[in-house]
Amino acid sequence: MKRNVIVGQSGGPTAVINSSLAGVYNTAIERGAKKVYGMRHGIQGLMKGDYVDLSKYIKNDLDSEILKRTPAAFLGSCRYKLPEIHEDKAVYDKIFALLNELDIEAFIYIGGNDSMDTIKKLSDYALLTGSDIKFVGCPKTIDNDLALTDHTPGYGSAAKYIGTSVKEIIRDAASQEYAHGIATVVEIMGRDAGWLAGSACLAEGEDCDGPDAIYLPELPFDMDLFMKKVKKALDNKGYTVIAVSEGVRTTDGKYVCEGEAGTGFVDAFGHKQLTGTANYLCQVLASKFGCKTRAIELSTLQRAASHLASRIDVIEAAQIGGASVKAADEGTSGVMVVFERESNDPYQCHTAVKDVHKIANEERLVPRKWINKEGTYVTDEFRTYVEPLIQGDLWPIMVGGIPRHLFMK
Amino acid sequence: MKRNVIVGQSGGPTAVINSSLAGVYNTAIERGAKKVYGMRHGIQGLMKGDYVDLSKYIKNDLDSEILKRTPAAFLGSCRYKLPEIHEDKAVYDKIFALLNELDIEAFIYIGGNDSMDTIKKLSDYALLTGSDIKFVGCPKTIDNDLALTDHTPGYGSAAKYIGTSVKEIIRDAASQEYAHGIATVVEIMGRDAGWLAGSACLAEGEDCDGPDAIYLPELPFDMDLFMKKVKKALDNKGYTVIAVSEGVRTTDGKYVCEGEAGTGFVDAFGHKQLTGTANYLCQVLASKFGCKTRAIELSTLQRAASHLASRIDVIEAAQIGGASVKAADEGTSGVMVVFERESNDPYQCHTAVKDVHKIANEERLVPRKWINKEGTYVTDEFRTYVEPLIQGDLWPIMVGGIPRHLFMK
Repeated sequence: MKRNVIVGQSGGPTAVINSSLAGVYNTAIERGAKKVYGMRHGIQGLMKGDYVDLSKYIKNDLDSEILKRTPAAFLGSCRYKLPEIHEDKAVYDKIFALLNELDIEAFIYIGGNDSMDTIKKLSDYALLTGSDIKFVGCPKTIDNDLALTDHTPGYGSAAKYIGTSVKEIIRDAASQEYAHGIATVVEIMGRDAGWLAGSACLAEGEDCDGPDAIYLPELPFDMDLFMKKVKKALDNKGYTVIAVSEGVRTTDGKYVCEGEAGTGFVDAFGHKQLTGTANYLCQVLASKFGCKTRAIELSTLQRAASHLASRIDVIEAAQIGGASVKAADEGTSGVMVVFERESNDPYQCHTAVKDVHKIANEERLVPRKWINKEGTYVTDEFRTYVEPLIQGDLWPIMVGGIPRHLFMK
Repeated sequence: MKRNVIVGQSGGPTAVINSSLAGVYNTAIERGAKKVYGMRHGIQGLMKGDYVDLSKYIKNDLDSEILKRTPAAFLGSCRYKLPEIHEDKAVYDKIFALLNELDIEAFIYIGGNDSMDTIKKLSDYALLTGSDIKFVGCPKTIDNDLALTDHTPGYGSAAKYIGTSVKEIIRDAASQEYAHGIATVVEIMGRDAGWLAGSACLAEGEDCDGPDAIYLPELPFDMDLFMKKVKKALDNKGYTVIAVSEGVRTTDGKYVCEGEAGTGFVDAFGHKQLTGTANYLCQVLASKFGCKTRAIELSTLQRAASHLASRIDVIEAAQIGGASVKAADEGTSGVMVVFERESNDPYQCHTAVKDVHKIANEERLVPRKWINKEGTYVTDEFRTYVEPLIQGDLWPIMVGGIPRHLFMK
């Protein structure tokens, strides 16, 4: 590389999004980039001229290592979608003027499918205007719903956290004794894709039966079957733990939690904001069976728990950050770097680049055949898929008993 | 020891209650006990004749080590309070007949203040009837609210989990950008005692400002001051993270969450069941400031997260289990083993025995002087107290990427 690199982070953060940032930084420096800039709060910050020189924060290998183990977006994230080019050309002219001023050779954007829309539009605009700046997307999302990639960095660590937490919750529930039993519903992120909810199956093993059911948003939620499953478990063993995606819907397409009170919030991308599926189901169970209930939302914890990151995930996140810079340095633009799995055992995976036009705004769902017939659990194929992604540990650097993070003052 | 030992677990489980069980088992065997029985679901199971021979489950040192790292009550817990002796002598006769049949020399009960009531009554009854069985309480509670002990096993690990999770939540919140800011309220267990909520201060360090406020149940909750603190943080930095105890009350003694809907549930001990303080406060904030909000209940996770246990806590839990057996073997009864702290730096602590009559049904609250003047944070004294209890890590034994537990089939 002969000129400078700029990198941004966008969308919901993960436990390893900063590992990708470290990968981008280290590879850019190794390949000769003069400066590596970081956009504060993604493209939204950049448009306000808010960026930093990353060498001021990543001063040595220890900083880089701590950064890899720091959750959430070090640079700050945003949820901003660029207008269509024909709608507001001025926005693009402004961005490109700034990038030229900073002598940018490669623009790397770490994010999910909404963020890939940014890469798509900027690379399109570069083509239209003959700019030689390379735009490359680096995948990131705990939701694991990006098209054309085997999986996304962030998913493995979230899955490991979910599997572990659900197992600990099962241990807790199984050790309790209540007159009418105890029903626990664990609510897991994922509006439309059940990759995260499905990973609750990881709690199952020689030493644990796993959850009694797992509900993914890909299939309609059957309330009668749910009630039957809970009753059977309460009768047989006095407790039940059920995992549900926040996005489960009934056959009429309504979110299950809308039964309670339809919350009308939407985020900047127009996505409906959901809360309360577990709470709602617990209310139904308590009134029907008189059992004690516990609604547990894993909430932000599942995407921020770098203290329980998957080593594979942290390493791959750094690698794909590096691969994004390499792709740009080799002259590619308008692409996202993807993972292609070669084998499960031994787990082997390589990176490739794919046209971002085929990825932006697409969603990859859990295949129907990876969910059991009655829609209440994932199959062995699902488990075979997710298991390699949670292997190995990269414990935090503990200082005074608490994980140390890298922090921008 | 010449005869047998029986041990039970009672009340809400913790991440290290099984480490105490391992300590009881190993010390009893070392001191010559012929058999070590485990009550299934505490005294409630025992009364139904439900007990096991622990040697069938703890077959070697590896089993013992896995047990130490397994969350929740391995033997099953209960929330059962014995009647007063004069109310129902028959219950006691039945229990003692069973204990004599099993040739019990020492009865160890691992639990909190309600469980110590069981030790008190059984040891009183032994005195009344001339039984030579020794009854010893082994403290356990994440709530840290037992009288006469410096701290309780289980608290350190819960505090470490809370400090770490709150720090990860702060990282996540700080990296987000919303038009009207984002307010996160983290709800932490603790009905009357703020030891757990206070431990949110552990998130604070060189690399993190910590939560903007911590509300303990010891002092009345001032809604106006709360709103001012949130507004100031949102104005200054665009986000706020606030930690609240589930038990915070307004000046009129009503639970804060009762503002929303008075839930009338009580548990077997007559304690009011609380939910929704964070949810309620988030609703208030969203309607007042139009900010995005996130209510996070740490719920069961905070008492079951053995994957993030404090090494000091795991070791001390095993030690105090062993000390309970030693006390009984030395002829003591009607006592609970306690910790007495010698110094903070270096941290040094020893065990002692205290009359269980002075502990049962008592609650130890956070001293007023360990909370700041306006009641919105803990002082340095609190931090100095809790810090030694979270030191060191004892990572789980990971099998296939997930913690392995010891499990009773």
